[in-house]
Amino acid sequence: MGRPTLNSVAEAAAVSRQTVSNVINSPEVVSPETRERVLAAIERLGYRPNTAARQMRTTRSQIIGLCIPPSGNGVSGVVLDQFLHSLTATAERYDHRIMLFTAADDEAETRAYADLIASVGIDGFVLTNTHHDDLRTRWLLERELPFVTFGRPWGAEDTHPWVDVDGAAGTRLATDHLVRQGHRRIAFVGWPEGSGSGDDRRAGWAAGLAAAGLGEGPQAAVYDGVEGGRSAAARLLDAGGRGSSAGTLGSAGAAGSEEGGRSANQPSGEGHPARLPDAGPPTAFVCASDSLALGVTAELRDRGIRPGADAAVIGFDDTPTASVLGLSSVAQPIADVAAECVRQLRTILRGKAEPATTLFTPHLVLRTT
Amino acid sequence: MGRPTLNSVAEAAAVSRQTVSNVINSPEVVSPETRERVLAAIERLGYRPNTAARQMRTTRSQIIGLCIPPSGNGVSGVVLDQFLHSLTATAERYDHRIMLFTAADDEAETRAYADLIASVGIDGFVLTNTHHDDLRTRWLLERELPFVTFGRPWGAEDTHPWVDVDGAAGTRLATDHLVRQGHRRIAFVGWPEGSGSGDDRRAGWAAGLAAAGLGEGPQAAVYDGVEGGRSAAARLLDAGGRGSSAGTLGSAGAAGSEEGGRSANQPSGEGHPARLPDAGPPTAFVCASDSLALGVTAELRDRGIRPGADAAVIGFDDTPTASVLGLSSVAQPIADVAAECVRQLRTILRGKAEPATTLFTPHLVLRTT
Repeated sequence: MGRPTLNSVAEAAAVSRQTVSNVINSPEVVSPETRERVLAAIERLGYRPNTAARQMRTTRSQIIGLCIPPSGNGVSGVVLDQFLHSLTATAERYDHRIMLFTAADDEAETRAYADLIASVGIDGFVLTNTHHDDLRTRWLLERELPFVTFGRPWGAEDTHPWVDVDGAAGTRLATDHLVRQGHRRIAFVGWPEGSGSGDDRRAGWAAGLAAAGLGEGPQAAVYDGVEGGRSAAARLLDAGGRGSSAGTLGSAGAAGSEEGGRSANQPSGEGHPARLPDAGPPTAFVCASDSLALGVTAELRDRGIRPGADAAVIGFDDTPTASVLGLSSVAQPIADVAAECVRQLRTILRGKAEPATTLFTPHLVLRTT
Repeated sequence: MGRPTLNSVAEAAAVSRQTVSNVINSPEVVSPETRERVLAAIERLGYRPNTAARQMRTTRSQIIGLCIPPSGNGVSGVVLDQFLHSLTATAERYDHRIMLFTAADDEAETRAYADLIASVGIDGFVLTNTHHDDLRTRWLLERELPFVTFGRPWGAEDTHPWVDVDGAAGTRLATDHLVRQGHRRIAFVGWPEGSGSGDDRRAGWAAGLAAAGLGEGPQAAVYDGVEGGRSAAARLLDAGGRGSSAGTLGSAGAAGSEEGGRSANQPSGEGHPARLPDAGPPTAFVCASDSLALGVTAELRDRGIRPGADAAVIGFDDTPTASVLGLSSVAQPIADVAAECVRQLRTILRGKAEPATTLFTPHLVLRTT
């Protein structure tokens, strides 16, 4: 069904995509037997290499395109900075350049790809913020255009090369640390389900609790931002009195909590018995971002709970704001990720090896919270 | 002396640089009399248009180069983000692209210019972080290459187009606000002298004090960063007891201060009489950056002085960190600056008008401090 692709030829000839590509672009590196088999499959299926892809292979502008996301997510802004700097510096080492462009959404980004290939003859792309049903990677794969993503192909097979940071390992590190510190009620403050990296970070926390025999921990899902973190903490602290349960958006917020101190006059809700021996409000918070963690610390302080002394808070991204405020955080090796993106893309462009996937491990930066 | 330049021809013919450029590139837009005069001057002086410049004029890659600074200055990182996004989006509106490159210092940046012109045929450059004795602008001017700077040509004539934000107006706004709030001892925490934008911000504060009849205020000069702000505040608070004076690096720090509360056991230094009727430690701090302001608020808190209640602190740049922490700050219209840089560069590239200079006015964002 549909137009034959590099993939269908590879399947028909029982070789890799790269081998098919080599037969087309550098036949001298392929054994005569394999070459014959691939050429036969190409003819049988009526496969024709994509024009845009061929054009990119011949012109070689040495330019790599990167779509910069709108700078909305303030506190994490510097992460993009580090990424851009390392990306540009590494590209220069390989005599490549980074060209920026903007796009309002996935579809606009694919239109920009087409435009940049036609107008600038760009060699390939680095994509950030991969997500479920990513239109962009599908578009690029269909056209067999060279690209690497910072972010895994969430919810899909490894159909393209990617570089990512193991977010689950990061929140696992944070959770294990809190367990060692003696915390038993460790909450997770994250984003609504469906975000690849958010679910990944949640999974690391859950695995840490399970490994420590702490069962399911309390959690709250909110949109990113300081206010989100604040409301999540409020909900978790208020719900704590009725025992620890996996809360979701809107699931908590009305229950009285002795420790909370603020909600004494609120309706007590449908109290149900605590499920853990040591039920009560969380004493530690693993957060999916520094923004959320900052909101949590603000809410704690407002309730007279001192972060670092009475409760522990760990953020994610190790932003300068975290450093300034003494917020413990999970640090991603952003410069390494960017450098690896360039290296992988270069490998693809030189047709030298199978595209790879690289997962970096983050580390925990402990400060005062 | 030296090779004749566009400037010397312009001077000899008593016309503008642009007119000389027009005679060379678009003679039809110049009146016959002027054209004759310019051509005579060109011949007399033996002027030959620079090859690289001519090459740029003919190839037109539609690509604008931007050197990204290393992301060291953490808290302000997002300012670069906003700048890049607006720069890229505006360039796209005019069918131009932004290409990034890196350079360790001014000289490396000029080498990168030469390389980018030769390899990519780049149309022009946007420069950031202008400073005294800027090698880069001199290099570009000598070669008559199109460029615009974000930042004034500090310590030099307006020899090139630039876009900037009126830092002095920003600190003046902050100072005037503090005066209206009733503060009399308003300190400035800035960088060592010699930084164009730093001296500019200091001047706005000084002018505000002078306008309010408050004479010379206390100040401290430190390198940027939270720790710098903290040590500056410590010095200013400790020195406050001996009267208000323009402190510089190392000028204070040992004197006893009743209000400081911390240095009571330190040697009292050479006390001298207060020069202002209302001498004492500063009650308000105008800072050259948010990082410095964050350090000041941290030092105040450590001394039991509550920012916003007992003392006022105003930062500069309106970073997300400032927003998260409730820090009042001077906000620069960064997106407007970037868009104007592209517009000016485009004007130069089209040879349509005299290069211009644009100074934007910042505004004050008041929060809790």
